[in-house]
Amino acid sequence: MLKDIKIGCASSKTKYGTRFDTSIVKLEKEAIWSGLFTSNKFKSAPVEICLEKMNKNIAEPKILMVNAGNANAATGKKGKKDSEKLIEDVSFLLNVSKDNILPFSTGVVGELLDTKKLSQTFKKCTDQLGKNSWEDFANAIMTTDTRHKIVKKVFKLGNQKINVIGVAKGVGMIEPNMATTLSFIFTDLKLSKIQLKKLHRDICDQTFNAISIDGDQSPSDSSIFATTSEIKSDFKKYHKKIKNSFFEVFKELAEKMVLDGEGATKLIKIKVSGLSSYAASKKVALKVANSPLVKTAAYGEDPNWGRIITAAGNADVKEFDMKNLSLKIGVHPVLVRGNLSPKYSEAQGKKEFRKKTINIEINLGKSKHTALIMTSDLSPEYISINSDYRS
Amino acid sequence: MLKDIKIGCASSKTKYGTRFDTSIVKLEKEAIWSGLFTSNKFKSAPVEICLEKMNKNIAEPKILMVNAGNANAATGKKGKKDSEKLIEDVSFLLNVSKDNILPFSTGVVGELLDTKKLSQTFKKCTDQLGKNSWEDFANAIMTTDTRHKIVKKVFKLGNQKINVIGVAKGVGMIEPNMATTLSFIFTDLKLSKIQLKKLHRDICDQTFNAISIDGDQSPSDSSIFATTSEIKSDFKKYHKKIKNSFFEVFKELAEKMVLDGEGATKLIKIKVSGLSSYAASKKVALKVANSPLVKTAAYGEDPNWGRIITAAGNADVKEFDMKNLSLKIGVHPVLVRGNLSPKYSEAQGKKEFRKKTINIEINLGKSKHTALIMTSDLSPEYISINSDYRS
Repeated sequence: MLKDIKIGCASSKTKYGTRFDTSIVKLEKEAIWSGLFTSNKFKSAPVEICLEKMNKNIAEPKILMVNAGNANAATGKKGKKDSEKLIEDVSFLLNVSKDNILPFSTGVVGELLDTKKLSQTFKKCTDQLGKNSWEDFANAIMTTDTRHKIVKKVFKLGNQKINVIGVAKGVGMIEPNMATTLSFIFTDLKLSKIQLKKLHRDICDQTFNAISIDGDQSPSDSSIFATTSEIKSDFKKYHKKIKNSFFEVFKELAEKMVLDGEGATKLIKIKVSGLSSYAASKKVALKVANSPLVKTAAYGEDPNWGRIITAAGNADVKEFDMKNLSLKIGVHPVLVRGNLSPKYSEAQGKKEFRKKTINIEINLGKSKHTALIMTSDLSPEYISINSDYRS
Repeated sequence: MLKDIKIGCASSKTKYGTRFDTSIVKLEKEAIWSGLFTSNKFKSAPVEICLEKMNKNIAEPKILMVNAGNANAATGKKGKKDSEKLIEDVSFLLNVSKDNILPFSTGVVGELLDTKKLSQTFKKCTDQLGKNSWEDFANAIMTTDTRHKIVKKVFKLGNQKINVIGVAKGVGMIEPNMATTLSFIFTDLKLSKIQLKKLHRDICDQTFNAISIDGDQSPSDSSIFATTSEIKSDFKKYHKKIKNSFFEVFKELAEKMVLDGEGATKLIKIKVSGLSSYAASKKVALKVANSPLVKTAAYGEDPNWGRIITAAGNADVKEFDMKNLSLKIGVHPVLVRGNLSPKYSEAQGKKEFRKKTINIEINLGKSKHTALIMTSDLSPEYISINSDYRS
């Protein structure tokens, strides 16, 4: 699959013993890419550099370089110079324009990179190019993930087979300071730059941007969607199938991220519908997903629906009207347009909250705009992991 | 103190054994009041009724009636009728216009009131009027608060003694579904309605609205500031002293609330300055205060400042610029205008995080607008309390 993409991994032998923690991915010159980055105003040096380069790349081979263990964030001017220095080294070694090299760093915040060591390790990656597997790459970008995250998919457009491979790292927070997510999704279906960007933005909005563990974006969150442009097809004719197929890959990666959040014992799916826009519905769903009271109730298997609607009511959405609010836990109506459902019993809610996946549905009106947000519960293990990690 | 205010308390003998859980406070006809209520779009029935009545009251005696144990929230049309029925009973018993009676309920969400029992209990309160103390009242409004919250203050304006008494209930969340705060502050200094309202709004904004435990407002949050209008003074001449004196009472009550948050082991003070408005600075401070990663780090005494600036960077404030960000932990500069301070050491941060009160200071520019937010840490006890409460 996607044999035109070459992977090289190596170990810096620092934080993670001899495990791979450094990688280079090389795409041929026909490749094009789209990048989406954190909305946090505090951005890591690599993210700042990516944002500058994203639209500059020319028809030459393209390089992604990733190191795990140090996010190079909150490192000021020196941090940016360090990343630029490493790009320069790789540019020289692989004879690729600096504008075609994107850097990614994930790990601890506020420490300068060990550029000498990383320079040597990236050198090893270039020597290894083509010798490492997708699984090696998925392992090499992990920080505190408990398992690597990789999704492979083949789908057909007419007689042609289209390949997609997605690799991501998620939401572990023991060693890095926050929930950095990195994702790299590759396909061989030829797409225009505009098609690629639009697909990337639309799909991310409903997958990576529709999961929430701690409620906020890290300084390093990055997603790259790239095509090697090998296989031509009729985009208009197959548009729906193309979008759905890519969507599946992004969604599976997103679910893997949530379920690997530390201390997670539950997957909570919050569906909000009925408001006049997707954005408004999403705002309400995110408020519920980020409520520590809802998350602790989920952990305790307590169908404490008062907390759900309290969180919802705090969303900054003007059209929100309690009199229109209906709430379901699983299939059971709890509130029907603002009034208690006489059919609901605590035992029904309890049964739903005992499940591994808890489904919560809120309706606030007649519109069909529906937002789905996934999150995890908040467990004592979350606290012990996040309070102890440097001691 | 404030002898013109009569208090009557009783026990419904339901949730809290024989402890007082129901109260009536009676103010004479010269009294005026100001009310501020939750910004949550989901409001309890009593809050909805208060909002309707706030500007209606006439020159007659005025009544506050409070029950603890059931918030009468998410109870729809029936809930509102129930509260109105109880008001009617008290109106009849005390011969006071219904428009002059404000109801307050705090406790569990989504259960209908036992109006029969409550009606009898409020009757007992009316029989008791004048026989109970401020301490009785402070006890009777508690839900899961571990101690009552009361602040008494006397200050002088020229030769006159001004009395202030503030009573509040806070942030316990075991039994009610959320962090309902109720506060009742009384003085004998005559103020115009406009003066009273403005003082109330300004002071609340920097006290009760500047503390954050779970990040959101409950459907029941209410604050009443009332004067018996007994003592006349020169408001203009003493304006600053008047404001500061009331501010102290509100602030002390707010601090008592934070320190009584369940599982709280630390008081975290977050000061943000330098942005072009108080509101912008407050937004950034609230993002830091509500970050579960910052709160768990505080619990673990880990000076994990990467989490602090990550949370700050997620605030929806356009003028936020990482290059202007300076961060101090205690007195120690960590970042100076976006760059690592060479003087900072992990040991300095650790020392500050070991203290009972952790001070965090963020500066983002040259303006003098400063917001101070107080919050508590996030401990395993918080989770166990909030996940177990109904089992």
